[in-house]
Amino acid sequence: MLTNTLHFKPVSTDLISAYTARLNAEVASGEVGYYHLPEYGNKIIDKAKTLKEKLSKIKNVVVIGIGGSSLGAKAVSKMLHHERDTSYAQLHFLENLDPWSVHALLDSINLDESFFFIVSKSGSTIETISLAKIVMAHMGCLPGSFKFADHFGVITDKDSPLDSFANQFGLSSFYIPQNVGGRFSVLSAVGLVPLFLTGFDTNKLLEGANACKNDFVDKIENEAILQKAYRYAIHKQASINVLFSYGDAFKEFNAWYTQLWAESLGKKHGFARIGLTPVGLIGSVDQHSFLQLIMEGPKDKTVTFLRVKDWGDRTPIPNLKLPFLDKVNYSNGLSIGSVLNAQCGATMQSVIQEGITTDLIELDKLDAWHVGYLMYYYEVLTSTCGIMLGINTYDQPGVEVSKRILKNILGVKR
Amino acid sequence: MLTNTLHFKPVSTDLISAYTARLNAEVASGEVGYYHLPEYGNKIIDKAKTLKEKLSKIKNVVVIGIGGSSLGAKAVSKMLHHERDTSYAQLHFLENLDPWSVHALLDSINLDESFFFIVSKSGSTIETISLAKIVMAHMGCLPGSFKFADHFGVITDKDSPLDSFANQFGLSSFYIPQNVGGRFSVLSAVGLVPLFLTGFDTNKLLEGANACKNDFVDKIENEAILQKAYRYAIHKQASINVLFSYGDAFKEFNAWYTQLWAESLGKKHGFARIGLTPVGLIGSVDQHSFLQLIMEGPKDKTVTFLRVKDWGDRTPIPNLKLPFLDKVNYSNGLSIGSVLNAQCGATMQSVIQEGITTDLIELDKLDAWHVGYLMYYYEVLTSTCGIMLGINTYDQPGVEVSKRILKNILGVKR
Repeated sequence: MLTNTLHFKPVSTDLISAYTARLNAEVASGEVGYYHLPEYGNKIIDKAKTLKEKLSKIKNVVVIGIGGSSLGAKAVSKMLHHERDTSYAQLHFLENLDPWSVHALLDSINLDESFFFIVSKSGSTIETISLAKIVMAHMGCLPGSFKFADHFGVITDKDSPLDSFANQFGLSSFYIPQNVGGRFSVLSAVGLVPLFLTGFDTNKLLEGANACKNDFVDKIENEAILQKAYRYAIHKQASINVLFSYGDAFKEFNAWYTQLWAESLGKKHGFARIGLTPVGLIGSVDQHSFLQLIMEGPKDKTVTFLRVKDWGDRTPIPNLKLPFLDKVNYSNGLSIGSVLNAQCGATMQSVIQEGITTDLIELDKLDAWHVGYLMYYYEVLTSTCGIMLGINTYDQPGVEVSKRILKNILGVKR
Repeated sequence: MLTNTLHFKPVSTDLISAYTARLNAEVASGEVGYYHLPEYGNKIIDKAKTLKEKLSKIKNVVVIGIGGSSLGAKAVSKMLHHERDTSYAQLHFLENLDPWSVHALLDSINLDESFFFIVSKSGSTIETISLAKIVMAHMGCLPGSFKFADHFGVITDKDSPLDSFANQFGLSSFYIPQNVGGRFSVLSAVGLVPLFLTGFDTNKLLEGANACKNDFVDKIENEAILQKAYRYAIHKQASINVLFSYGDAFKEFNAWYTQLWAESLGKKHGFARIGLTPVGLIGSVDQHSFLQLIMEGPKDKTVTFLRVKDWGDRTPIPNLKLPFLDKVNYSNGLSIGSVLNAQCGATMQSVIQEGITTDLIELDKLDAWHVGYLMYYYEVLTSTCGIMLGINTYDQPGVEVSKRILKNILGVKR
């Protein structure tokens, strides 16, 4: 179960219930595809099973993709690292046109044991296609060579340039529904296929997402989401939304949240510039970093705490009484996870005492079901904020300018 | 060389020159210790050399520390990973009371080949001492056992509880000057000792920092820093300072910057709440994430771009003309690093066009000298901002509340 406790005064249901209808209308319209992904996931996994049979020698699955093409699978794989079936291949990512990262990965794997997914919704992302070329040349596996289709596949929109390329060379192709944006695509082929092939429980992931859909979308029980979104939308001076996640496993989830939030909710609306700024923190590490600013800096932040009730860790901190260090004996005998959670609770109390808008999300445990639920929850929260802010949550017009300038800098003739 | 180009209108030198005197007075006062660390570093390294001779069998150096006790060394080790002398031991970190991270590290190393530094300025950080106890018990190496001093050492303030503990058991101790705060301690024993023992060029690191001291502190040539700090201090509506670093090597540097900035510059001042909010991004990855918000969201951000002129990477993107994908041939034949830098330039132009306060820091290359220079530069920038904001840059009173509440939650009797 995921529980969400609000530590701020909710508004009257009358004020927010109209937005439920708007949300449900958006779901029913069919124009925003991500809402419906949990229903279609099993078909994608079935197709991935067929591919897996062909890839019996493969020990590495490499996602070549950036932004929405990598962040979702990265987040899931980091959160569920502990329950991965290690008889499956390992998952790697090639995201950035970074000279050192590229060489570090390519020097550590070989062609015979590797399968590369070129993942790009548009099919023409400069980083992704450039990286794919580097891989092809480095591995000596060029389009047209007889082994090419054994080592490369694509995940893209149907009829994109990359889809046409894949068809010409007989590569395995998986499609992203046209009405599913990159940052909302984790439960499409973009996330499911690489995750299934590398031993993650994608069925449970879908079940959890579906449970969230039932709880928050189809029924009118999404009060926590509505209250939060309303608060974020009207509380203009607090435009920074901190997600304080307790546990190292959430590092990549924070990055996924940052993309989802920033790219969806930062938009021009006529002459107005609207936006909510995401900040992802890890507890307790960032109690020794960003917390001071939350506590004493301007009240321009809201804070969501995220923790896992049961880490399944039974090893206690040893009952050692070290000379001179007796002041910190109070953690002795407690499990590591329970101290981590107490730190979360203590920091939350201190933030609440400062009068800062705060809420707590608790997962019973960190497994595929809860991860699916959590990610779907954040997608619906993002959509709800977008509806309340009156913006288009699903486009990203602001990033096109730099792409055009890049072509100018590199002397592209058009 | 580090060059810093400002893409905003500077103010008259008259307005800012007074702050140079204030900065130099702070340096001369001797009350803020980090300014002088480059001068003392060699003595610390000499002592670390003696320790290294004793540690001939050691293949792993593990820093047990959190916040200022780990972020600096982590940042340096990530930026300089490529030029590390791999005949030295490997560097690891145990930071967080996270059940899974702790077990993942401890299961991968053994006692005979490992040396653990307990790093805590106060000497009584709950995470650090708890983790140290877990390590001692897991490795079967308790205080009093005959091998204890061969595998544990401390870095702390003189006469702290941890120092007394180390003395009782004959552990190697390195001291942090009392007037050097954790987040400013990377060039003290906290950073230098673990980095030296694991094959990083700490001499060059110190030389670079010293060069920055000469350029920006001792002489009155710190115009770029003064102009930026002044802009950040007076430009109240832009209180979020984005550092957009191009290259995966900067991930941990961004985290170090975040702590330095947030903990130093978020402060209550009488009834006023003052603060600048740091956000660290990685290019080009975050062009596919946070950039949309910068471009179209509220103008509450300034952006510093950081790039490396010469990545030393000569492998070009292969000149492959893939069918259907000819629109993205414009990177063909260019080195990976040059495309990365062009992306930085393009994104910077697009941000400048929106009228957002922007500047560019360029490092000639990414080596120890430049890393030392860069980190010292950021420390001085932080101090200068603190002077202009009229706050105490060097304390962190806001984080104490949650520590007290934690003890209550865990039932500590006082």
